[in-house]
Amino acid sequence: MSNMRTAVFVVLDGLGDRPLKDLGGKTPLEAAKTPTFDRLAAEGQSALMNVIGPGLTPGSDTAHLALFGYDPLADYPGRGPLEAFGAGLATKPGDVAFRSNFATVDSDMIVLDRRAGRTFTQEEQTELQAALDGLEIDDVKIRFIATVEHRGALVLEGEGLYAEISDVDPHETGKKILTVRALKPEAEKTANIVNKLMQVAHERMEGLEINKERAKKGVPVANALLLRGPGRHSDVPPLPERYGIKAAVIAGGALYIGTAKYVGMEHIPVEGQTGTIDTNFDNIAEKTIETIEADYNYVFVHIKATDNASHDGNAREKILAIERSDAMVSKIIEKVGDKIVIAITGDHSTPVSTEEHSCDPVPILFWSNFIRPDSVKKFSEIEAAKGALHTIRGIDVMPLLLGYAGYIEKFGA
Amino acid sequence: MSNMRTAVFVVLDGLGDRPLKDLGGKTPLEAAKTPTFDRLAAEGQSALMNVIGPGLTPGSDTAHLALFGYDPLADYPGRGPLEAFGAGLATKPGDVAFRSNFATVDSDMIVLDRRAGRTFTQEEQTELQAALDGLEIDDVKIRFIATVEHRGALVLEGEGLYAEISDVDPHETGKKILTVRALKPEAEKTANIVNKLMQVAHERMEGLEINKERAKKGVPVANALLLRGPGRHSDVPPLPERYGIKAAVIAGGALYIGTAKYVGMEHIPVEGQTGTIDTNFDNIAEKTIETIEADYNYVFVHIKATDNASHDGNAREKILAIERSDAMVSKIIEKVGDKIVIAITGDHSTPVSTEEHSCDPVPILFWSNFIRPDSVKKFSEIEAAKGALHTIRGIDVMPLLLGYAGYIEKFGA
Repeated sequence: MSNMRTAVFVVLDGLGDRPLKDLGGKTPLEAAKTPTFDRLAAEGQSALMNVIGPGLTPGSDTAHLALFGYDPLADYPGRGPLEAFGAGLATKPGDVAFRSNFATVDSDMIVLDRRAGRTFTQEEQTELQAALDGLEIDDVKIRFIATVEHRGALVLEGEGLYAEISDVDPHETGKKILTVRALKPEAEKTANIVNKLMQVAHERMEGLEINKERAKKGVPVANALLLRGPGRHSDVPPLPERYGIKAAVIAGGALYIGTAKYVGMEHIPVEGQTGTIDTNFDNIAEKTIETIEADYNYVFVHIKATDNASHDGNAREKILAIERSDAMVSKIIEKVGDKIVIAITGDHSTPVSTEEHSCDPVPILFWSNFIRPDSVKKFSEIEAAKGALHTIRGIDVMPLLLGYAGYIEKFGA
Repeated sequence: MSNMRTAVFVVLDGLGDRPLKDLGGKTPLEAAKTPTFDRLAAEGQSALMNVIGPGLTPGSDTAHLALFGYDPLADYPGRGPLEAFGAGLATKPGDVAFRSNFATVDSDMIVLDRRAGRTFTQEEQTELQAALDGLEIDDVKIRFIATVEHRGALVLEGEGLYAEISDVDPHETGKKILTVRALKPEAEKTANIVNKLMQVAHERMEGLEINKERAKKGVPVANALLLRGPGRHSDVPPLPERYGIKAAVIAGGALYIGTAKYVGMEHIPVEGQTGTIDTNFDNIAEKTIETIEADYNYVFVHIKATDNASHDGNAREKILAIERSDAMVSKIIEKVGDKIVIAITGDHSTPVSTEEHSCDPVPILFWSNFIRPDSVKKFSEIEAAKGALHTIRGIDVMPLLLGYAGYIEKFGA
């Protein structure tokens, strides 16, 4: 269809803030020089957004699920599958995924080091991964990937698996690995598999060559797995199925990539994209333009630097991150502005003054070269309140973006 | 946590109004001098609020349930338990409570006086109460408290009780007390108990010494009970359980105290607090400050004078009640402003011109010394429409207040 545009969704993580005395009572977004955002706000429509709901402080994972159009209260799978996807281990509906640690236990499975010394070479990770990935316990297949340091992601594949089980991790050294119980009757099988897995993993890991080497060097051996954050990949339809769109994620952080992949986006890697202020904004702009010009219908661009600066209580760096993001969006608009509908927002507020996520709503703007303007002339937490869209929720963003971009069919005749 | 504040919730009953010719087209709130409310509106965020929903006229009980964070449509227990709590008779989940009248019947249970003459001495009330409180019918225990004049509250304690039963009260003299029917099958037991109770109460009351005295004086005897407003204490979790907060109510009227206690607040009595314009505003301010400085996380302050003036069609007195409330809040802000998040609103509109509750939304403001301001400079029905919070519902107030005050955990990671 000729009227279709690419929907571009730019999230500056933790963007929303509160007035700061150091900034003369302005928020970092108000203090930042944002000629592009202001122009888009002036030509487009603004709103304040409760990402989950009024008064609720969103986590990054639930916030993004909502912003991708999923009900975070009903469809949140827990951290496991999102982390697994982020680590490059795709789950499918029915799979149960965990985050994991390599740990050190004695012969009675008593935990001696919950992180097995924390440091691992790539070779060690490869050998541990090979020992665990592909295991089978009863009719359940185990998939495992080592990620950073002692961390990894583990997936159970099989029928009748559920995430409602008690903890493996005693959360203290000197205590035995816990026997897992089902927290609902349907999870009985999963609890059994996990209990067997703890034993099998221990036996497999114990004898590995790398552990002999680690022991020789006096480094804690990695002879057990601690699992946490179980989550079941639910049956919610991914974006391509739901809307018939091809969707891409351009992000630096594993959790954001993971959440985006969980809902069916393809990850487009960008050279130099990181989670910090040193991320390569130019490369992100270029890759976004390239992706828009390819056949993607939806591109999600995630900038983490704003949130990192907030958690560090660093207003100057937050302003810098906002200004660099503004310049990045400017390049996109200049090149492909007539081919897109764009929304710019945060996934939650992280006030520099509190250094943690808060319940304050976030400003959002919607722009395309055909959209009706409202009276707002500047992109800020204060001005957005006067926008034509008034107050929206996170879950409203996807329909708004895809509606304007032309991907939601007329309902009725 | 250092970021926690006490949430203070001030309700001026029936605050909302309509323009009055006598006030030059202003509402009483617009006409009143409210320097404190205006300052808080200027520094904070305003909204218009549909307490139940657009176009719906709230009752006082359902309005307060919504404002305390409960769904008034799903969680309204009926008037019984709220009145019982207000009278000092605590119910617990599963109990069924009623409001009651002492009445006069003849030997065929035909109602001669629905209020048994209406006037009772305290001694008479005590004797009647003693005759009824503690009765047992089958496995159900009866608790009873006499309140004002012929009125009282009655609670059934036991297993398998439901409030869906037909009326006892024929609502006319000259008619027999009605045999109660179950309006759903589960309420069969309750209907039987109530039918037996009508008989037992009659027998117990008939022979009382006070009735011989009343008969001698030619005053109608109190030899029957009429029950109305049955309600079942539902299983909704009270505030302390739901949010982990310690909550207090500072109110003059029994229904407000009752509704607050129903959701788990403790009643803090204030000397001289009444439901009229003569209530002691200074004492209310002082006790509120004291309660904030104690370890309460939430304090609900209810001012009834605004509503009484409205029901009397008395705009001048409504203005006076608003101005005195403004001065009261001024004292609270001056003393403990840096320790609180405060919301100020009404539970519904009671236009002076109609003298009854109406569906007009009410203005609400939220303030703390860290909150983002909006463009509203004055607290009024008209200005509040321009507020950053736009239109909210009564059920949004509790999450907003407790979210900003720091009592709602982050959802997700």
